[in-house]
Amino acid sequence: MSKIIAGVMGPGKTATDEEMHLAHEIGKLIAQQGWVLLTGGIKYGVMDAAGLGARESGGTVVGILPGADAAEMSGSVDIPIVTGMLDARNNINVLSSRILFFIGMSPGTASELALALKYGRASILISQKEDVIRAFRYIGRNKIEIAPDVPSAMDIARRIAEKNRA
Amino acid sequence: MSKIIAGVMGPGKTATDEEMHLAHEIGKLIAQQGWVLLTGGIKYGVMDAAGLGARESGGTVVGILPGADAAEMSGSVDIPIVTGMLDARNNINVLSSRILFFIGMSPGTASELALALKYGRASILISQKEDVIRAFRYIGRNKIEIAPDVPSAMDIARRIAEKNRA
Amino acid sequence: MSKIIAGVMGPGKTATDEEMHLAHEIGKLIAQQGWVLLTGGIKYGVMDAAGLGARESGGTVVGILPGADAAEMSGSVDIPIVTGMLDARNNINVLSSRILFFIGMSPGTASELALALKYGRASILISQKEDVIRAFRYIGRNKIEIAPDVPSAMDIARRIAEKNRA
Amino acid sequence: MSKIIAGVMGPGKTATDEEMHLAHEIGKLIAQQGWVLLTGGIKYGVMDAAGLGARESGGTVVGILPGADAAEMSGSVDIPIVTGMLDARNNINVLSSRILFFIGMSPGTASELALALKYGRASILISQKEDVIRAFRYIGRNKIEIAPDVPSAMDIARRIAEKNRA
Repeated sequence: MSKIIAGVMGPGKTATDEEMHLAHEIGKLIAQQGWVLLTGGIKYGVMDAAGLGARESGGTVVGILPGADAAEMSGSVDIPIVTGMLDARNNINVLSSRILFFIGMSPGTASELALALKYGRASILISQKEDVIRAFRYIGRNKIEIAPDVPSAMDIARRIAEKNRA
Repeated sequence: MSKIIAGVMGPGKTATDEEMHLAHEIGKLIAQQGWVLLTGGIKYGVMDAAGLGARESGGTVVGILPGADAAEMSGSVDIPIVTGMLDARNNINVLSSRILFFIGMSPGTASELALALKYGRASILISQKEDVIRAFRYIGRNKIEIAPDVPSAMDIARRIAEKNRA
Repeated sequence: MSKIIAGVMGPGKTATDEEMHLAHEIGKLIAQQGWVLLTGGIKYGVMDAAGLGARESGGTVVGILPGADAAEMSGSVDIPIVTGMLDARNNINVLSSRILFFIGMSPGTASELALALKYGRASILISQKEDVIRAFRYIGRNKIEIAPDVPSAMDIARRIAEKNRA
Repeated sequence: MSKIIAGVMGPGKTATDEEMHLAHEIGKLIAQQGWVLLTGGIKYGVMDAAGLGARESGGTVVGILPGADAAEMSGSVDIPIVTGMLDARNNINVLSSRILFFIGMSPGTASELALALKYGRASILISQKEDVIRAFRYIGRNKIEIAPDVPSAMDIARRIAEKNRA
């Protein structure tokens, strides 16, 4: 049986402290749940913080790297997947994750949310701006989930995983 | 000297009649300008209508196809590029276009707009919802251009092409 | 009706003068046939020479570039497709070409020949080493065509194009 | 510290019993070494056998899947990476593996060996035909390693891993 992979997507260098704190929390909960964490693998922002949270709780971190080598890789990554295809790798992030958490919003993150809506992947938004929520609700025809905080986000994710299995 | 490639991005099957009309108009203007039109290559919606507009005006149409063959290809495509990589090909659409027009908004289109903002590609939005504009202005830190109609969109595009050349 | 795309694959910087001469010849014949030439788009070796041959005969040249911009692009390219995915773009070269000519043999070229055999694309080898022919006949279960010179290669290609249309 | 990833590449449905036996053996040794096994993830041939060998020895198996879902996935895969990009994913197999073992030879396998030579990845051939070895020695300018059996292949791999670390 393959493991459940949960992706955490969010800004790199432009992430706020608050976003990194939330990412660290969700990373911990994903690891405690026994799920594998998937990120974009870079050593900045949400990707890095989520990875560190998962590692501290004994979890496994897969990093889907945009470059052709491990340059700028987060120290949290156990399993680096080297794609060499820049942001075309965002499509792999989405296809490979059974559930996706979105914390903060950069252009790269928005491309991943859009692709998640396209493929119908479960997408849980944490602490997002009202304008962003409204636009993506319109674009995705309401298929996104909004969580007020990290524990609620994880509750939603568990419920979705349970339902998909049934 | 390679030709200037202008991309037109927008919904496929879910495009409205109005969006297809606008796409047809911009396709015509792109061809009349002597630019090559690039689309996602599918025989529905904005991609198809823009392609037909360009073809009717004697232009060249490049279609970047998501599938592994020419299934569902628009009849407007002169040069089909077969990627076999689903929506990871959206990244190629963006990287290959010097200027991008966005008409209508679906998840696939939103992923292309987000990637265009990421790479700093000139992005001109035609007839978009206020909520979408507001969200992407925030995500892209104001780097998008808004055009009220097709001729103004083309004016903006010409100005950008001129400036890039200088 | 979309145009017939013929790919010419071969070494870049390591190409020999003889290989570049053959590439130039096949580029000319492809253009004279009214087909579009597809190459890897780089300004060295077989890609460059085939493109220049096609351009001199008024043909159209599509370059599928490995990088994220037009750096090192051959001056022969009319239509640059910017993939940003390094040699994963070799798969696009193969999928997009109805017929593939192979002149000279580098690791990149070998990956394209192998993929062409995988997808059953018509593959015509010009002036290849006996060892290479023997290995790829074994790998591809004999599906390759061997041409002693450029005009014979083009005869084989025309015959294949004719048969596929029928 | 990220883990060392070793790839095992070889035919799927066309693999021989002997090739599957060798793949199973190398999968076991990779797991016993504490390395992560990477395969193309499909439930046939060398990919499947290597994965099962690794799993039986308590190892971790990453499968880089060509499709857009887990269809035809090997039961040995712990961590499925869903690329949706067909054989363009072969480039990811190569870039992500620090060391690559090649058992048997199909068109897909040949494309991976060619890309490994292009990127200078350590490539160890087990039980290959003399014609194939001769051709790829020529193509790769002698950069391949030839192992007569699985334990020797693993000795070579350990030596390379040791040297790269130093």
